[in-house]
Amino acid sequence: MSTLNDRGAPQPRDAHYAARVTDSFQRQGFMRHIRARIVRLEPGYCEIHVPHQAELTQQHGFFHGGIIGTLADNAGGYAAYTLMPADASILTVEFKVNLLAPGDGDLLIGRSRVTRSGCTLSVCHSQVFVRKAGVETLCAEGLVTLIALPGRPDQPVADSGLHHD
Amino acid sequence: MSTLNDRGAPQPRDAHYAARVTDSFQRQGFMRHIRARIVRLEPGYCEIHVPHQAELTQQHGFFHGGIIGTLADNAGGYAAYTLMPADASILTVEFKVNLLAPGDGDLLIGRSRVTRSGCTLSVCHSQVFVRKAGVETLCAEGLVTLIALPGRPDQPVADSGLHHD
Amino acid sequence: MSTLNDRGAPQPRDAHYAARVTDSFQRQGFMRHIRARIVRLEPGYCEIHVPHQAELTQQHGFFHGGIIGTLADNAGGYAAYTLMPADASILTVEFKVNLLAPGDGDLLIGRSRVTRSGCTLSVCHSQVFVRKAGVETLCAEGLVTLIALPGRPDQPVADSGLHHD
Amino acid sequence: MSTLNDRGAPQPRDAHYAARVTDSFQRQGFMRHIRARIVRLEPGYCEIHVPHQAELTQQHGFFHGGIIGTLADNAGGYAAYTLMPADASILTVEFKVNLLAPGDGDLLIGRSRVTRSGCTLSVCHSQVFVRKAGVETLCAEGLVTLIALPGRPDQPVADSGLHHD
Repeated sequence: MSTLNDRGAPQPRDAHYAARVTDSFQRQGFMRHIRARIVRLEPGYCEIHVPHQAELTQQHGFFHGGIIGTLADNAGGYAAYTLMPADASILTVEFKVNLLAPGDGDLLIGRSRVTRSGCTLSVCHSQVFVRKAGVETLCAEGLVTLIALPGRPDQPVADSGLHHD
Repeated sequence: MSTLNDRGAPQPRDAHYAARVTDSFQRQGFMRHIRARIVRLEPGYCEIHVPHQAELTQQHGFFHGGIIGTLADNAGGYAAYTLMPADASILTVEFKVNLLAPGDGDLLIGRSRVTRSGCTLSVCHSQVFVRKAGVETLCAEGLVTLIALPGRPDQPVADSGLHHD
Repeated sequence: MSTLNDRGAPQPRDAHYAARVTDSFQRQGFMRHIRARIVRLEPGYCEIHVPHQAELTQQHGFFHGGIIGTLADNAGGYAAYTLMPADASILTVEFKVNLLAPGDGDLLIGRSRVTRSGCTLSVCHSQVFVRKAGVETLCAEGLVTLIALPGRPDQPVADSGLHHD
Repeated sequence: MSTLNDRGAPQPRDAHYAARVTDSFQRQGFMRHIRARIVRLEPGYCEIHVPHQAELTQQHGFFHGGIIGTLADNAGGYAAYTLMPADASILTVEFKVNLLAPGDGDLLIGRSRVTRSGCTLSVCHSQVFVRKAGVETLCAEGLVTLIALPGRPDQPVADSGLHHD
């Protein structure tokens, strides 16, 4: 187990982590549907962008809190997944998000960094920014707990047999 | 301030709470888009249903954790909103959700009940169930903190002038 | 894995769960020190009492939020531990607590019930009450995530060799 | 309202914030009792130290999770309190803490920084480290939400009349 700080450079257990993350991400219908893209991926770090769409708004036209929470969760999940072994799949155990400012802007940016990468459990610290007229504002901060399921590669549905416990 | 237990019957401050909740809900583009419906609304309680759609899935075809979190948050928000005064709007301060079982089913059901209804802050306990072949399974549990903004009715965007603080 | 509701009667995997919980609890110097007592223990449920002491107060003489959080965490931990196998020890993964009312009273009561009991992870819903002049008030509500460490019985320090991962 | 990043230098609204924080801290019987000390205080930042004591341990002799959570909460509370106006008192709304490594060491160090400082609500990001043989290990990470109560100075109990809402 290692606890990591922002300046550490964690070593991935799987050299092909980027392809593994990308494959999993592309199988998430919800990510495709909201036009989410991974724009930066490093060992222990993930950044996801989602453009503003009327379909993703709350009652004042801003990004919905559920979408903001989704980015905090998913950026955390894929940040943690970069450090997991090749044969593991990943599940979110829980996440918590504080909404700090309205999601008022044209682009939502989720950034998450692994704080703890263990054989079983990982923890990530996520920040969500909203960009408006080129200026980024921090609109949410969260913590995400994830669990690795070793020996259960993250594959298309028909092959997975995934279940909790 | 009152802390409420499950058996209490809280009194709404606004007799027209149902219309106020429904209006706000219908202005949320994200709720319309995912075909969410409020199916039960009482003072201090809200239940929201979302049918399964490929657009809302994670990599194994189940409801995405972000959608599950969205229901925990939004059911909590509208449960709390039933007890707020007519001239208040509402914002989520933070929410936390534990994912307990895969979101494997044809219908996602968010149920939330107010635990504390204060002049400023409210807290709700949310449970999210997934229904498959007629059987409901608890797939998530969460806590949601909300803030009332008195004197700022929840209106269409052009009129609102809403901002934090 | 099973998700439990309030009405379920979960079956303990270890018939001697009560002795195992009590032994572990008594080894916690902090619990002894604050005069905490387990007053009710059932499969999937634990209730802990702590009497008011000047040593446990915040700046207004009420129970300190840290003590309230401790009860939410610890009642959850021992509720989950009742359902774990005889050879497992237990660690808190994370907890979250909402403070709903001041801890103003002569007795603090933590009650927690298991929502999910898995081979690896368990989740508990905790409520903390404060009793004043015989009347109980809900002063906090929380969620606790716990992990079982199979094959590592919860023993006195010299024998344990316990570490994360 | 302002959201702050780690590099910002927030301006205190009250030039005497340090005396105000220290006075409040010293009135917390629990902090005195566990021999907690504020060792660094800046606008938007607080660091609290607690030495190892058998009275503060869990069943393996390490710092109890409840004490770790207490430091995450309290460091956050006083970090936020540095930025509040002179006539305000402060309450914790909720906190969440992930336990990342055992609290195995001779000194527990809570560090917290304000992420959002609003007129009503503030949010802090807390990290708790344990020091052993001179080496610090991150053992917990948390988020804390706090509320300012303007016009209710944080005074000794007899004068306060403090209550929620």
